[in-house]
Amino acid sequence: MQLTLFSDYALRLVLYLAVHEDRVVPIEEVSRAYGISKNHLVKVVALLVEENVVESVRGRSGGLRLARSPRDITIGWLVRRTEPDMDLVECFDPRTNTCPIAPVCGLKHALREAREAFLAALDRSTVAELAAPRKHQPLIALWSRALANGGS
Amino acid sequence: MQLTLFSDYALRLVLYLAVHEDRVVPIEEVSRAYGISKNHLVKVVALLVEENVVESVRGRSGGLRLARSPRDITIGWLVRRTEPDMDLVECFDPRTNTCPIAPVCGLKHALREAREAFLAALDRSTVAELAAPRKHQPLIALWSRALANGGS
Repeated sequence: MQLTLFSDYALRLVLYLAVHEDRVVPIEEVSRAYGISKNHLVKVVALLVEENVVESVRGRSGGLRLARSPRDITIGWLVRRTEPDMDLVECFDPRTNTCPIAPVCGLKHALREAREAFLAALDRSTVAELAAPRKHQPLIALWSRALANGGS
Repeated sequence: MQLTLFSDYALRLVLYLAVHEDRVVPIEEVSRAYGISKNHLVKVVALLVEENVVESVRGRSGGLRLARSPRDITIGWLVRRTEPDMDLVECFDPRTNTCPIAPVCGLKHALREAREAFLAALDRSTVAELAAPRKHQPLIALWSRALANGGS
């Protein structure tokens, strides 16, 4: 059981922008600070702009910034939007299910409850908490080291 | 976020054996009752035998049966054993992590808590509950229909 790289990158990007809320951040900087592909990030940004989480500022000194307060972004909300599929097993989707016992099987309910518990736990965390002022210095120190090393 | 087909099949197999606790079940029957690949099931059986959940009875009238009471098998325990990887994101495994901020990032803790909430919810369900006597008739009716249709 894993989250997609897409969700992982979305979470990292939003955290970066929350810590750097005072300025517009070039996408290349985020890519280099984490050592991750800019091409992947571009797709993540496209979704987050569509979801009105990130704002893309055009022009020479353009880049990205959060479109809403980090206090208003929960990790659960973000993961629900970035995961392409929260169907833990095939019977979650009646359109593609092939399991003959799906109509009466209790497993689906047990797994649904577990999924809800997972998301409810993530709903209790906001980006603001992850980017609290006391965490800025240690986070920026590690990003700076990656940027100095050239990123990838 | 999805469970592997391996976990899905393991859960289905254990449920089938729990409902048919009175006899030894040929693996072909399970394969046909769900319309799933016998080759996949063989790998699932190998792990569940190793984990002492399933017993493989050799011989002409051989097959599979549960090696322990369905009351003693929780869905959480089973999923922990069948999922190859519960590392939701790469920083869960320090050996392969490449994210530079992992040592100070709070995201890992939020995701870990969510994973624990997920597994704790599944720990509250046992195979015995899913295979309760009142569910036998409706489950057997649907398996029988699949078996009559030839399975796959």
